[in-house]
Amino acid sequence: MEQGSTNNSLRRESVMVNRARMLISCPDQPGIVAAVSQFLFEYGANIVQSDQYTMDPEGGMFFIRIEFDLMELGSRVDQLRKDFSVVADKFSMDWSLSLASQKKRIAIFVSKEDHALLELLWHWRASDLNADIAMVISNHPDMQSLVEPFGIPYHHIPVTADTKAEAERRQLEVVGDNVDAIVLARYMQIVSPSFIKHYANRIINIHHSFLPAFVGGKPYAQAHNRGVKIIGATAHYVTDELDGGPIIEQDVQRVSHRDNVEDLKRIGRHIERIVLARAVAWHVEDRIIVHNNKTVVFN
Amino acid sequence: MEQGSTNNSLRRESVMVNRARMLISCPDQPGIVAAVSQFLFEYGANIVQSDQYTMDPEGGMFFIRIEFDLMELGSRVDQLRKDFSVVADKFSMDWSLSLASQKKRIAIFVSKEDHALLELLWHWRASDLNADIAMVISNHPDMQSLVEPFGIPYHHIPVTADTKAEAERRQLEVVGDNVDAIVLARYMQIVSPSFIKHYANRIINIHHSFLPAFVGGKPYAQAHNRGVKIIGATAHYVTDELDGGPIIEQDVQRVSHRDNVEDLKRIGRHIERIVLARAVAWHVEDRIIVHNNKTVVFN
Amino acid sequence: MEQGSTNNSLRRESVMVNRARMLISCPDQPGIVAAVSQFLFEYGANIVQSDQYTMDPEGGMFFIRIEFDLMELGSRVDQLRKDFSVVADKFSMDWSLSLASQKKRIAIFVSKEDHALLELLWHWRASDLNADIAMVISNHPDMQSLVEPFGIPYHHIPVTADTKAEAERRQLEVVGDNVDAIVLARYMQIVSPSFIKHYANRIINIHHSFLPAFVGGKPYAQAHNRGVKIIGATAHYVTDELDGGPIIEQDVQRVSHRDNVEDLKRIGRHIERIVLARAVAWHVEDRIIVHNNKTVVFN
Amino acid sequence: MEQGSTNNSLRRESVMVNRARMLISCPDQPGIVAAVSQFLFEYGANIVQSDQYTMDPEGGMFFIRIEFDLMELGSRVDQLRKDFSVVADKFSMDWSLSLASQKKRIAIFVSKEDHALLELLWHWRASDLNADIAMVISNHPDMQSLVEPFGIPYHHIPVTADTKAEAERRQLEVVGDNVDAIVLARYMQIVSPSFIKHYANRIINIHHSFLPAFVGGKPYAQAHNRGVKIIGATAHYVTDELDGGPIIEQDVQRVSHRDNVEDLKRIGRHIERIVLARAVAWHVEDRIIVHNNKTVVFN
Repeated sequence: MEQGSTNNSLRRESVMVNRARMLISCPDQPGIVAAVSQFLFEYGANIVQSDQYTMDPEGGMFFIRIEFDLMELGSRVDQLRKDFSVVADKFSMDWSLSLASQKKRIAIFVSKEDHALLELLWHWRASDLNADIAMVISNHPDMQSLVEPFGIPYHHIPVTADTKAEAERRQLEVVGDNVDAIVLARYMQIVSPSFIKHYANRIINIHHSFLPAFVGGKPYAQAHNRGVKIIGATAHYVTDELDGGPIIEQDVQRVSHRDNVEDLKRIGRHIERIVLARAVAWHVEDRIIVHNNKTVVFN
Repeated sequence: MEQGSTNNSLRRESVMVNRARMLISCPDQPGIVAAVSQFLFEYGANIVQSDQYTMDPEGGMFFIRIEFDLMELGSRVDQLRKDFSVVADKFSMDWSLSLASQKKRIAIFVSKEDHALLELLWHWRASDLNADIAMVISNHPDMQSLVEPFGIPYHHIPVTADTKAEAERRQLEVVGDNVDAIVLARYMQIVSPSFIKHYANRIINIHHSFLPAFVGGKPYAQAHNRGVKIIGATAHYVTDELDGGPIIEQDVQRVSHRDNVEDLKRIGRHIERIVLARAVAWHVEDRIIVHNNKTVVFN
Repeated sequence: MEQGSTNNSLRRESVMVNRARMLISCPDQPGIVAAVSQFLFEYGANIVQSDQYTMDPEGGMFFIRIEFDLMELGSRVDQLRKDFSVVADKFSMDWSLSLASQKKRIAIFVSKEDHALLELLWHWRASDLNADIAMVISNHPDMQSLVEPFGIPYHHIPVTADTKAEAERRQLEVVGDNVDAIVLARYMQIVSPSFIKHYANRIINIHHSFLPAFVGGKPYAQAHNRGVKIIGATAHYVTDELDGGPIIEQDVQRVSHRDNVEDLKRIGRHIERIVLARAVAWHVEDRIIVHNNKTVVFN
Repeated sequence: MEQGSTNNSLRRESVMVNRARMLISCPDQPGIVAAVSQFLFEYGANIVQSDQYTMDPEGGMFFIRIEFDLMELGSRVDQLRKDFSVVADKFSMDWSLSLASQKKRIAIFVSKEDHALLELLWHWRASDLNADIAMVISNHPDMQSLVEPFGIPYHHIPVTADTKAEAERRQLEVVGDNVDAIVLARYMQIVSPSFIKHYANRIINIHHSFLPAFVGGKPYAQAHNRGVKIIGATAHYVTDELDGGPIIEQDVQRVSHRDNVEDLKRIGRHIERIVLARAVAWHVEDRIIVHNNKTVVFN
């Protein structure tokens, strides 16, 4: 069976012009839901969906995702943000409010493998990825002819050991500050701490995962030698710790003794595509809160 | 992969003595969440989980499940119920409030097949079914020796065409009014409308399901002749319409040309067990609201 | 977890020039495997994979799929076929022998919905569908601009009640006899019995399926009203009985009360894509034997 | 969806008295299938199922599982084994032949956790595990009252650092040579190399697995801190390398941020039960060949 968890990217909330989404995290205490819902009620908003999670009722963290409708949202959202900050300050909230009608902008970084990039382009083409793909950036020219028919700008920014710092400056310039996510769709360069800091909790990476794990080189060959029955992929936010950032989504696929190393790599690519597409969809639908080194995913 | 949806029956919420669960449904209008959360806040309760769903923002129904903690809940719950009814009346709510520490009581009805019964007994034995199995009732004596080692009373109430009404009177008497669910674990007798009415939205049934469906007798033989690749099971609340009540849960299992009719029946039993166990777990954890002929399942 | 059953279309058997695939079905009797394997051994062939299934050891049918390697297969295959027919006749075999290096040719029929067509085009583009898409035929012009960038000929053959017979003559002419499969990728016209007969066991269709089934119009609305938790799709060979031909593959996806009718349709399209792509992959990899109204799928 | 891969333990091959199963592995060369099938044909046997796998057509290994029926198998099997050894020697085969009617005998080792043991007992009780559970051995007395109602002998053999060698002598004595599998159902003692050698490829262990892996102590706490979305279990044959033996089966279950460390452990136990039960079922149905450090599983 296909994962139910893919559904959210397939469930098109009728994106009304007056629909807003709030993400809130703060230390738990009684009265948070009351304060937020009272605020929205007095504003004339109607909560159409809410999902809450409290990490530990005794002194833990409180997380909530709220969708609400508000008449003439577009012209009132700035004032709403200003007014809500009073409530937010009282409870020491980390919070964000975004408009469902305002598509997220994403930049895709890619190297020479096309599978993760293509999956995102096809989801976007089929209206299953509800975002604008603002650009594709690559350290190689290979994907240009594939990307441009989609009408998406392609920036070839070569990276060598010598030019790494300069290349990253170029990337920063091209990406700018107006992106909601940078998706590393098999981008085979290490991103610097300062770049990561600039786009904290906005850079999404995908990599293969095994059960159990295999350290060292050639993980697929190791997995094949051990005769694993399952291989997987992990999508996570990028932090300074290589492949150690908060996990957004994981999934696996069954393999058998009939699959050789090449088969495992092919199946690995397949599951990477699926997991990355889900992670990006949840990110652009404001379904993820990062807390310490883990995610709360409302889906 | 095992369904994530099984997790809830496996996720033991630390059943604190002060934890309560509310289920509310009412016509949607602004201010419901505010009113409920304000009420709970003023009572000193702390909402630890809430999940809301609005069927249609324009004039639809509003559904919410809330878990909250309240000091000395046991001694205050009667007053809380009384006080909340004022809020509830204002919004024309259907609502229920139950204590997580108060185990639900269930009665299991069974005929001659043991698989669904055994699954429930084993889940209960492994503490995965958080309820008291108050009794097993059967129109046959066969299961008695299987049930009694679990320390559960077994009532043999034979049913024939002539004694059906009398048998149902006996069942009503034995079951009484103090049960939260009657589980038809392959009980092969039709239950009367008056019995159903007495236990409305509390009788859970399980039956096989196919993709596509096969009408008429011997559905497994028909499915085999057509070479189906998937067979399933459906758990639902019992209504007057035979097998037509609100669906609680469904699941399927893959089959192949290698499976003969007997194999299909065996696999059908396996999936019936799993689906029924999930439905019962969600029911006793107050995760289900019935609205018209469908369910809202918060899981 | 992604179905293991998708793996076969992802498992690229290294398509050596000397690899052949045989499919055999015949009444079971002792000595079939011995005769076939002895024949291949004497020819100098090496069996690299075989999968056998006997429907009923007592007087049932015997089915086998064999992959073997034979030096200089290309120049010897005609003689091999001639020589093998002696063995085949002795056991009253239905059989086929195809070269792994010879890509199957498929024609895709489509109307106005693009999802099933796109899935096949993308699988083909990603080298996951190991076949030549020889042409796309549609009763509408809508898909032309989508198909042609892939370098695939597009034939617009309008169909009206009056021109149905003439249109089918055109289709027969355009498709010709040199196709291994006609894929109805949401082609919304009924195909005539004579057309079906011409391409017997070569026309593959996809349609939605429910658990339980809903007869009459608007199946998704009916499924929504009943609150189904699972929706599915069925791929089958087309026979004269509408949607009643041998089932090749089925799969399902979990849905919930949160999904409205439009969501169900969207998810339905998603699962249709996946199931159709698997069925076509298995067909072109010679993994399917049709027997009476069911399939034996070696995967 | 439940894994299709569970089906084999649910698919009761009609265990006829004349049904035999062969497992063969040998270096690949042309003519193996011909020789084996010719031998069986001349003996009057009828092959009812066969599944073959060649690791690498160029100089690799050949593996086959064959089920065949032979009249009066019981009285002829000794002669058949003798006669077949001529064929086997010619191709340097490792091979085994067993009677489907002869139930495998298994011994279960357990410590203080009951979940894996109970799963096996319940599968056995429901006739889903087609074997005789000859005994349960434990280093603790705790499970005795649980095991004995099933009519299975329970041997309490305490193990301490000082008595380890002596305890293992006792275990060897009690288990004896007439067991087909020793199942470590959460047996928390390390088994010595000499014990492993005595029961080579017959000792099956189960342990938790993560994606990615977490080294060091408290793996569930580590997994929770990282916010994993999937946890799993691995069943494998025991070798001298701790938890490094040939993998028989793996599976996973989805978890979320809502699951605390205790939830993860509970879900981990659930998936361990399922994976271990599958591995044992495949072992007793002669579906597994071990080659180097990996398994070929015919299912």
